[in-house]
Amino acid sequence: MMGTNRKTNIAVIGAGRIGKLHSKHLASLIAGAELTAIADIDLEAAQETAARFNIPTAVSDYLELLDDPDIEAIVICSPTNTHAQIIQEAAAAGKHIFCEKPIDHDLSKVDQALEAVEKEGVKLMVGFNRRFDPNFRKVRELITQGKIGVPHILHIISRDPAPPPMEYLKASGGIFLDMTVHDFDMARYLMASEVNEIYVVGAARVDPKIGEIGDLDTVIITLRFANGAIGTIDNNRKAVYGYDQRVEVFGSKGMVAANNPASDTHVYSNQEGIHSALPLYFFLERYSTSYIIEMREFIESVQNNTQPPVSGTDGRIPIVMGLAAKKSYQENRPVQLSEVDGSKTK
Amino acid sequence: MMGTNRKTNIAVIGAGRIGKLHSKHLASLIAGAELTAIADIDLEAAQETAARFNIPTAVSDYLELLDDPDIEAIVICSPTNTHAQIIQEAAAAGKHIFCEKPIDHDLSKVDQALEAVEKEGVKLMVGFNRRFDPNFRKVRELITQGKIGVPHILHIISRDPAPPPMEYLKASGGIFLDMTVHDFDMARYLMASEVNEIYVVGAARVDPKIGEIGDLDTVIITLRFANGAIGTIDNNRKAVYGYDQRVEVFGSKGMVAANNPASDTHVYSNQEGIHSALPLYFFLERYSTSYIIEMREFIESVQNNTQPPVSGTDGRIPIVMGLAAKKSYQENRPVQLSEVDGSKTK
Amino acid sequence: MMGTNRKTNIAVIGAGRIGKLHSKHLASLIAGAELTAIADIDLEAAQETAARFNIPTAVSDYLELLDDPDIEAIVICSPTNTHAQIIQEAAAAGKHIFCEKPIDHDLSKVDQALEAVEKEGVKLMVGFNRRFDPNFRKVRELITQGKIGVPHILHIISRDPAPPPMEYLKASGGIFLDMTVHDFDMARYLMASEVNEIYVVGAARVDPKIGEIGDLDTVIITLRFANGAIGTIDNNRKAVYGYDQRVEVFGSKGMVAANNPASDTHVYSNQEGIHSALPLYFFLERYSTSYIIEMREFIESVQNNTQPPVSGTDGRIPIVMGLAAKKSYQENRPVQLSEVDGSKTK
Amino acid sequence: MMGTNRKTNIAVIGAGRIGKLHSKHLASLIAGAELTAIADIDLEAAQETAARFNIPTAVSDYLELLDDPDIEAIVICSPTNTHAQIIQEAAAAGKHIFCEKPIDHDLSKVDQALEAVEKEGVKLMVGFNRRFDPNFRKVRELITQGKIGVPHILHIISRDPAPPPMEYLKASGGIFLDMTVHDFDMARYLMASEVNEIYVVGAARVDPKIGEIGDLDTVIITLRFANGAIGTIDNNRKAVYGYDQRVEVFGSKGMVAANNPASDTHVYSNQEGIHSALPLYFFLERYSTSYIIEMREFIESVQNNTQPPVSGTDGRIPIVMGLAAKKSYQENRPVQLSEVDGSKTK
Repeated sequence: MMGTNRKTNIAVIGAGRIGKLHSKHLASLIAGAELTAIADIDLEAAQETAARFNIPTAVSDYLELLDDPDIEAIVICSPTNTHAQIIQEAAAAGKHIFCEKPIDHDLSKVDQALEAVEKEGVKLMVGFNRRFDPNFRKVRELITQGKIGVPHILHIISRDPAPPPMEYLKASGGIFLDMTVHDFDMARYLMASEVNEIYVVGAARVDPKIGEIGDLDTVIITLRFANGAIGTIDNNRKAVYGYDQRVEVFGSKGMVAANNPASDTHVYSNQEGIHSALPLYFFLERYSTSYIIEMREFIESVQNNTQPPVSGTDGRIPIVMGLAAKKSYQENRPVQLSEVDGSKTK
Repeated sequence: MMGTNRKTNIAVIGAGRIGKLHSKHLASLIAGAELTAIADIDLEAAQETAARFNIPTAVSDYLELLDDPDIEAIVICSPTNTHAQIIQEAAAAGKHIFCEKPIDHDLSKVDQALEAVEKEGVKLMVGFNRRFDPNFRKVRELITQGKIGVPHILHIISRDPAPPPMEYLKASGGIFLDMTVHDFDMARYLMASEVNEIYVVGAARVDPKIGEIGDLDTVIITLRFANGAIGTIDNNRKAVYGYDQRVEVFGSKGMVAANNPASDTHVYSNQEGIHSALPLYFFLERYSTSYIIEMREFIESVQNNTQPPVSGTDGRIPIVMGLAAKKSYQENRPVQLSEVDGSKTK
Repeated sequence: MMGTNRKTNIAVIGAGRIGKLHSKHLASLIAGAELTAIADIDLEAAQETAARFNIPTAVSDYLELLDDPDIEAIVICSPTNTHAQIIQEAAAAGKHIFCEKPIDHDLSKVDQALEAVEKEGVKLMVGFNRRFDPNFRKVRELITQGKIGVPHILHIISRDPAPPPMEYLKASGGIFLDMTVHDFDMARYLMASEVNEIYVVGAARVDPKIGEIGDLDTVIITLRFANGAIGTIDNNRKAVYGYDQRVEVFGSKGMVAANNPASDTHVYSNQEGIHSALPLYFFLERYSTSYIIEMREFIESVQNNTQPPVSGTDGRIPIVMGLAAKKSYQENRPVQLSEVDGSKTK
Repeated sequence: MMGTNRKTNIAVIGAGRIGKLHSKHLASLIAGAELTAIADIDLEAAQETAARFNIPTAVSDYLELLDDPDIEAIVICSPTNTHAQIIQEAAAAGKHIFCEKPIDHDLSKVDQALEAVEKEGVKLMVGFNRRFDPNFRKVRELITQGKIGVPHILHIISRDPAPPPMEYLKASGGIFLDMTVHDFDMARYLMASEVNEIYVVGAARVDPKIGEIGDLDTVIITLRFANGAIGTIDNNRKAVYGYDQRVEVFGSKGMVAANNPASDTHVYSNQEGIHSALPLYFFLERYSTSYIIEMREFIESVQNNTQPPVSGTDGRIPIVMGLAAKKSYQENRPVQLSEVDGSKTK
């Protein structure tokens, strides 16, 4: 297994939707990875996924995988409330870690996890897959090249085609930690600057039941960046025309935007108008490529011993932002990130 | 002049850029209007415009026109600080009034003008020309038809190609009363709901001199509507790619947007990419049609004795919004419109 | 009337649809023109147009206008079969001439007219208005600047929203002389090269009655240019989605195209798809600007004593092309232009 | 291997570019296929591909695979001049056959191959992958649903980003059999009607060397369909802006087109214009999905014992069309398909 074409032995923890997706990619599309095991508390689910993607080992207890000295890296796809603990255990076992977002809804648990990672010197990458979307990458690339000059204004539109089940929502941590957390990361990624202050307006307009559990489904978040730029994030849980994921950055020398990729390129003209295809339906379709690229880059960072492209801090800050957004909504006023994070925010 | 094809005798006050534009339209493109006179304190300017558009009378003192019993309606294109007074004088003289925006920066003066109009029973229309832009009209039409269901979110992008001279800016009343006032009107027009609360973030990023005079050039305004919808306005004084005037309204059943009309429809493909034309350069190009339609509809409201499509109240509320925006920026907090307008807001 | 701001006295012959259009433009939008008279065999029609656009003189016999020494130029908007004769008479009277297309369906009459123009030394401009469309101008501009390198392939799509009445069609000279003649001119304009050979496939598919009178409504014309490039013209009499007028030129270094300008820029997204506005309905809407520019440039050529931008030869060659297309269709074979024009084609 | 989840044992013949592509798909993305062997006259190439995609067997002589009773189907990716013979041998061995296009340049060899297939009762599918492109499928779907009414006019634009090496071109059979053959198939697929007559104009304009070997690089082919519709195909070997693959079908009730999918959805606006991404570079990128779908549908037709979606006749007719195109170019006249195919064309 050593040598120029060395493959990294990797295991997946969690055989749910996203665990299956990463398994599929690691099994066939990531040249540098050898997917050797999968764990799920539901052993049957682990076995089924193992059979489908020719994974040699399936277990119910992930600790067995952490004990396996042949496994170099793990992919954490278990429920959010287990992430922080598994990160600590995996770090203690000397495994490199890819963890689905968010690390945890509780900042102190996040910090414990990050400390363990730092102490053990393993790599941690957080699954903010949208950074690897070729459309958003191109936007960032043009900004980095100076093509728009000094960035002044950012707009992110991020709307789901339909709300998740109420059971999911109840455990989600609220729209800011579940949904906006991706956009908070995107804001930092595109602007290459931290956010200092957040102001939120919002309501439950899609479904009153969402309001009844204290959550929102329609929000606009205003951002002030450390570099003086300003921006907005627009979230909605139900865009009937499909997954709406756009960004636009305006600067002193121009503007760059990324539009929704469409299901196909057809254009139909009749006496009613000109008609074209809807956006790709939801995140599995829209971000199919980005999931592959993120895993490839994680494997590369392990193999080349380089910094993963999304760090633990990159995983932490959007949670701080989510907490600030929550506070801003509750108090209807702009909130500084330092109010929810004290001296920790960098 | 009476009869089925009766023309309305009209006079223009002010022979500056916008006065010339209205004169040109009234002289040749508005079938129901007979442009009989123009006034400008600079008599030469009045005479020059009169010669160009075959206007019979040119005077320096607009009071002469108000005294002329043959003149039925006037178009006020003089400096902003004269609007309120001329409205009162014209109303007293029984003339119907078209007044360029804004009525005044001082709410009490606006109110005096509106009271005079109401008392004398003349018509007053305020020149929010963008309401007559065919693109934005189409957006409103689809909303009114219920095509997007319940409107949830509004976004207005409104950026100028280049800032005006500092002299202009100093007298402009600030970005909210000079520039955003149009977008405040657009927000009310599209959403058919009043705004209750405004929050502003902004800076002077285009030109530090704009900051030195206490003004802003880069702002995002968050709006809460009475009907529960939310929205943003994005203003900037310098979009290097030209006049950027877009709107987008998202609702429970769909979304409708209006993009920038381009200078032409060419598409050029070379090895660098696919290239197309910039937006129409500035407001005279972009809104060329809307200026004609607004004047035609003013004349029609006079001839048919109907309510003008933009009322005095429509002229007043955006000024209230501008004052609330100013206060929000100064105090960095959301501001209720009632805070700046007391019991007057409807 | 002399001096730096000299206006050119001009008269319109024919008060039909296009005569009214030119009258309107000459009366108000062409600074250098003074529209002093209009003639129509139907005096009432002439008088009505005169009243509408403040034209001092209305007569039934256009010869009166040719006799008037104050009139410098005429605009021929009478039926096609009168064009050649009026051109000769106007040339003999020393008037500069703007003539609607086509000059005549009979090449010998065209040649007599052009000879008269040459002999008398007056200016003749033929009304190929599409050359003045800003979209097509931009295409030509990029080609002329070398942006696409050597042009290889041209495609012209030119479809009407609905066929004209059968009465019109019977007198139209057939689709090639009535409709394609514009596209033949566009082909020469864009490619800056003459066509040597034409091949036609076509049928009457829109309306069998069009076939019964020996005409076609659906044709594709293949062109070989003298410079080695090749191209097609696609004509149809009924595009239910509106006036479809596009061009595309492909070359060694790139491609440039012009798409249809839409009625407005709205985009509506619902669960069925993304919907936008139809093209501007027909030629009066689509080419509204081009009609103004062509007349302005005619007046300028008269005032500056320069060559009009569309010459008599430019008016003649598309007729030769139409005759070749007709022959190609009848004989189902490629036809050289020299077959229908002998030694005359340049 | 039997049962509900039965997999079809399949082997690939030829380990060149397209053989590798099919191997990759069969190895990981086609659930119903078990890729058990690969053959290439260059054993090392076969072994290398086998290693890369975990294919158990690699041989140099494909006859070994035809002798293997466990192999049910083969994929022919060898050079064109071997296709017809391998088809006959595979049919004799009772294997189902997927064959890359074209079957052969010689119609009599094609016919021998098709006869063998018919006699042995095996399935044959020809690799016209573009039929499986989601964009073109959508176009066909709308036509089949009657959304454009009666189809009148077809346009196909099909341009490569760069010409292949001269060595390839010399063995290619010429542009009509190598490149246009795909577009001939697309024409039949979209219009659901056979072509009766073909007329060609063309030249070698991209590279004079292409002309020197008697080939063309710039052609326009005019088509007459049996149902009375007409159309064009535009081919060019060098579009500097990338792979240009568009179709447009115009009918009595509307038009449907498919545009080029772009590399990404970014839009960059600066003072020069509005810029967006180029089309996906070449066929491997543009048709990545269509290659997967075609193989999946082939496997399904084998497993379900249904007619493959592209038949042997579908593979044959485009060759007839290519021969007619060649003749048309040589004789500069429209050529009936029956002229090159006698009584055989269906």
